[in-house]
Amino acid sequence: MKKPVDYSLYLVTDHRLPLDSMEKVVADAVAGGVSCVQFRDKISDAGIMVKTAFSLKRILSDYDVPLIINDRVDIAMAVDADGVHLGQRDIPAKIAKKIIPPEMILGVSVESVDDALRAESLGVDYIGVSPVFSTPTKTDTAEAVGIEGLRAIRKVTYLPIVAIGGINISNAALVLQSGADSIAVVSAIMSARNPGDESRKFRSIINGVINT
Amino acid sequence: MKKPVDYSLYLVTDHRLPLDSMEKVVADAVAGGVSCVQFRDKISDAGIMVKTAFSLKRILSDYDVPLIINDRVDIAMAVDADGVHLGQRDIPAKIAKKIIPPEMILGVSVESVDDALRAESLGVDYIGVSPVFSTPTKTDTAEAVGIEGLRAIRKVTYLPIVAIGGINISNAALVLQSGADSIAVVSAIMSARNPGDESRKFRSIINGVINT
Repeated sequence: MKKPVDYSLYLVTDHRLPLDSMEKVVADAVAGGVSCVQFRDKISDAGIMVKTAFSLKRILSDYDVPLIINDRVDIAMAVDADGVHLGQRDIPAKIAKKIIPPEMILGVSVESVDDALRAESLGVDYIGVSPVFSTPTKTDTAEAVGIEGLRAIRKVTYLPIVAIGGINISNAALVLQSGADSIAVVSAIMSARNPGDESRKFRSIINGVINT
Repeated sequence: MKKPVDYSLYLVTDHRLPLDSMEKVVADAVAGGVSCVQFRDKISDAGIMVKTAFSLKRILSDYDVPLIINDRVDIAMAVDADGVHLGQRDIPAKIAKKIIPPEMILGVSVESVDDALRAESLGVDYIGVSPVFSTPTKTDTAEAVGIEGLRAIRKVTYLPIVAIGGINISNAALVLQSGADSIAVVSAIMSARNPGDESRKFRSIINGVINT
């Protein structure tokens, strides 16, 4: 049985930070209201990734915040992470579902209504709509989905929608009002001067939208 | 129950080849006497790796030659490969053993007697002694183990030894006479003008040593 996940403020880590800085940022961010963390690292050796993921898991367990691993299903299984997130160029979700434990959360990136319908039919747990706006963090993604695209996806699926890509303090409320259940951020928190304070600002916006 | 593997002529693929060329080279090499193939790709997206691995598996199944996946335990599980090979910087073998199916072959790279002893205590199926000689294919590896190093490792372990790194037609016999059960090659076959003929030359050397 999968445990329910609060995706509302979803932090994606940035592999450009050294481990000690990343640990500090993640701890501050979670204390500030981040409810879910995705470890994303497209450059390190798997041995390093295992160490980093174990370290993040230890930090997050104090807050009961789930850890989701990007791309590497094996790393997710190796550290017994709560979930795995697969992009369009990663192991196909259909195949990943056959190898992950039944309790592991499976999220996939979608860029269109068709992607979202396909993801729902595969029985994934949430979709990451990406990129909502254009973003400097990922250069390999498709054209921005936009607010209209997000609304269109919301109309066709009951799955939790994590919106990602170019989301910041000024557009977060609009994204949530346009059908996203969650906002995911990388640089807005990872590169913030004070990641804890920045997380609290996002948290306050989210709570404001949820309560209206 | 793991099926017995003939490691004697072990081909490691080169990701610099496009898929269609790689398929052709592997098919020719296997027809020429390669007995085991490791798919090694450190650059492609996982989605591409899954496709390539499935394609190699199809080719190899005609010859009953096992497919071993380098580094990515998840890709090995996704395509139900025969085995996985882990380098010193990949997921630690001890952790990998917990997530792979019991029948999956597990091989690890070792660079020293200590590594070999540790690998044996972990219950791996074979060790790749690497690099025996210095090699242009991998630039991230330690100093060459050399013939003396190979002999020293042979003395301490009963595990099958796959020797890799700088092995060619002229030194293959010496490597086998120095304790290796198998020679692994990348460029000597992958970059050969005629991979089938080159494989037959290696096969003939191997059979010559085995029968003397």
